[in-house]
Amino acid sequence: MAYRVLVWGLGAMGSGVARNVSQKEGLRLVGAVEKDPQKIGRDLGEYLGGEKTGRQIYSDVEKAVSETRPDIVVIATNSFVEEVLTKIETVARHHVDILTIAEEMAFPFFSHPEESEVLENIAWRYGVSILGTGINPGFVLDLLIIAMTGTCLKVDRIEARRINDLSPFGRTVMKTQGVGTSPEEFKKGIETGEIVGHIGFQQSIAMIGNALGWDIDRIEESREPIISKTERRTSVAHVLPGMVAGCRHIGRGYCGDKLMIELIHPQQILPEKEGVDTGDYIDIFGEPDIHLSIKPEIPGGKGTIALATNMIPAVIESGPGLLEMSELPIPRCLLNEIKEI
Amino acid sequence: MAYRVLVWGLGAMGSGVARNVSQKEGLRLVGAVEKDPQKIGRDLGEYLGGEKTGRQIYSDVEKAVSETRPDIVVIATNSFVEEVLTKIETVARHHVDILTIAEEMAFPFFSHPEESEVLENIAWRYGVSILGTGINPGFVLDLLIIAMTGTCLKVDRIEARRINDLSPFGRTVMKTQGVGTSPEEFKKGIETGEIVGHIGFQQSIAMIGNALGWDIDRIEESREPIISKTERRTSVAHVLPGMVAGCRHIGRGYCGDKLMIELIHPQQILPEKEGVDTGDYIDIFGEPDIHLSIKPEIPGGKGTIALATNMIPAVIESGPGLLEMSELPIPRCLLNEIKEI
Repeated sequence: MAYRVLVWGLGAMGSGVARNVSQKEGLRLVGAVEKDPQKIGRDLGEYLGGEKTGRQIYSDVEKAVSETRPDIVVIATNSFVEEVLTKIETVARHHVDILTIAEEMAFPFFSHPEESEVLENIAWRYGVSILGTGINPGFVLDLLIIAMTGTCLKVDRIEARRINDLSPFGRTVMKTQGVGTSPEEFKKGIETGEIVGHIGFQQSIAMIGNALGWDIDRIEESREPIISKTERRTSVAHVLPGMVAGCRHIGRGYCGDKLMIELIHPQQILPEKEGVDTGDYIDIFGEPDIHLSIKPEIPGGKGTIALATNMIPAVIESGPGLLEMSELPIPRCLLNEIKEI
Repeated sequence: MAYRVLVWGLGAMGSGVARNVSQKEGLRLVGAVEKDPQKIGRDLGEYLGGEKTGRQIYSDVEKAVSETRPDIVVIATNSFVEEVLTKIETVARHHVDILTIAEEMAFPFFSHPEESEVLENIAWRYGVSILGTGINPGFVLDLLIIAMTGTCLKVDRIEARRINDLSPFGRTVMKTQGVGTSPEEFKKGIETGEIVGHIGFQQSIAMIGNALGWDIDRIEESREPIISKTERRTSVAHVLPGMVAGCRHIGRGYCGDKLMIELIHPQQILPEKEGVDTGDYIDIFGEPDIHLSIKPEIPGGKGTIALATNMIPAVIESGPGLLEMSELPIPRCLLNEIKEI
């Protein structure tokens, strides 16, 4: 008996989840939903680069759910709560569980209290569980930090950094991170909302605060341009000295005036050009202090695909509700199928 | 409403748990049980170095449980399943949950299948949950590894090292690790069972294997003397060049002939004398590879006290059964009480 999985959205992440699901012993990929006319109607296995499987790419989610009878739908279409709320409700009405990689869904309770109420009601009304997850938010700058505090007698303050390399990403990411802009364009992009930096600080900080019982009453974010001193070039971006190589995005959570949680996430192309080591770094100040590093950083794409796949059984086996990572058993890599040769 | 906690055993670990519990907002220390006549009958708060609390140190566990009506008993008296089984049953008969730091209880299913059946029956008969935890086994070389694999598409092999410093410990630990022996004495100590090294490899390897669905059919352990090249001295140990500074203990888990999990735990006094950096190191080989380090290592004493305290709510809130860390929500540091000044 394997859990039946439908994937909604076949972008880089959704396709990756679909491919990964199809390799797991305990999961069965039963179909996908897409809005791109070029993908609709194609054989899903073939589209993913494998053999024909007879599984379809649907345009209509209602039809897809009715025909494939999934245990869970993985929604990999958007980043924001507002964008996925209706999609979640559509799936929930079929009494099917939902996992989404929409960043804001990793812990919507603080940033979106009203929508969270609506989602909680939907979850209970239809008896489904709903989880948002991903590498970050969802793991590196929240779940892993929370788990590490479990080894502490007390915690006074948390600081963590995720220093990564945007070089493998495409034009959309370059645009939302301001790569290749002038400092003036960067400033304007922040004002117009075209440059967003990282999505997830509100969620990560609120998740940590909630787990530790800290009364976080204010979350502040700052976005600064990373001005390059060197020439940096990828297949889609070209940065000259004095131009912007990325966005240094910081989130800070306060209890009153006290800074409790500081999360630092500078995202740029080719950081090694200026001697910056990529990695994930967690510093917990308390009793004892904990200094953890992961070098290089856990890759964002693979990490998100892995977590979205590996959490599927936990979501299906959980009772109804709008869930968050820290209330579920820890993730673990699901076993791959042993292919006969 | 705070959970009522009774601590059984007031050695270094039990006293630490009792002290830590008494500082947590959501927990209340209601008493302790000890066999040492010098401690029995004393005021528990005073014994722990604080003010009188009216809470007692009992000699009789039955009387202690009846009088203090705990929600949970933390058993911090022994390392082995055989030694705590009867104690667990005694507590369970009162329909009270159990957490223990007995190393073998962190995952007894593989090393002690028969006793695990007995404990599972006890748990269900009396409707109690039973958990073994601690820093290692219980976290560094098992739970943390499992959680990190959650970010992987697949995992081929795991290697992890916990390199620590025994210098703060007393004579008992020096003896069980062979510190200060000659190479010949070390060899003999291993044979007679006087030198044991680390307790927990069987449990950590089996816990990882179980979480990842790996069919670990063989666990091998090797214990080698760490021969000192330098003179090393602590308040209780003195090692000359050519003598044993500690025990290099390795556990290996196999699927058939394939080495899947290798856990390396050299324990010695003053490793920095020979340029050895203490730390916890996890290497996961798969897709992607993960290289994690914690420097210095999470201190064993504090870490065990913290986990034994921080897991209390999860054990009480769980349904009945013989539990293990990877099926519970992740640990997190419980909030300290805000003391009025």
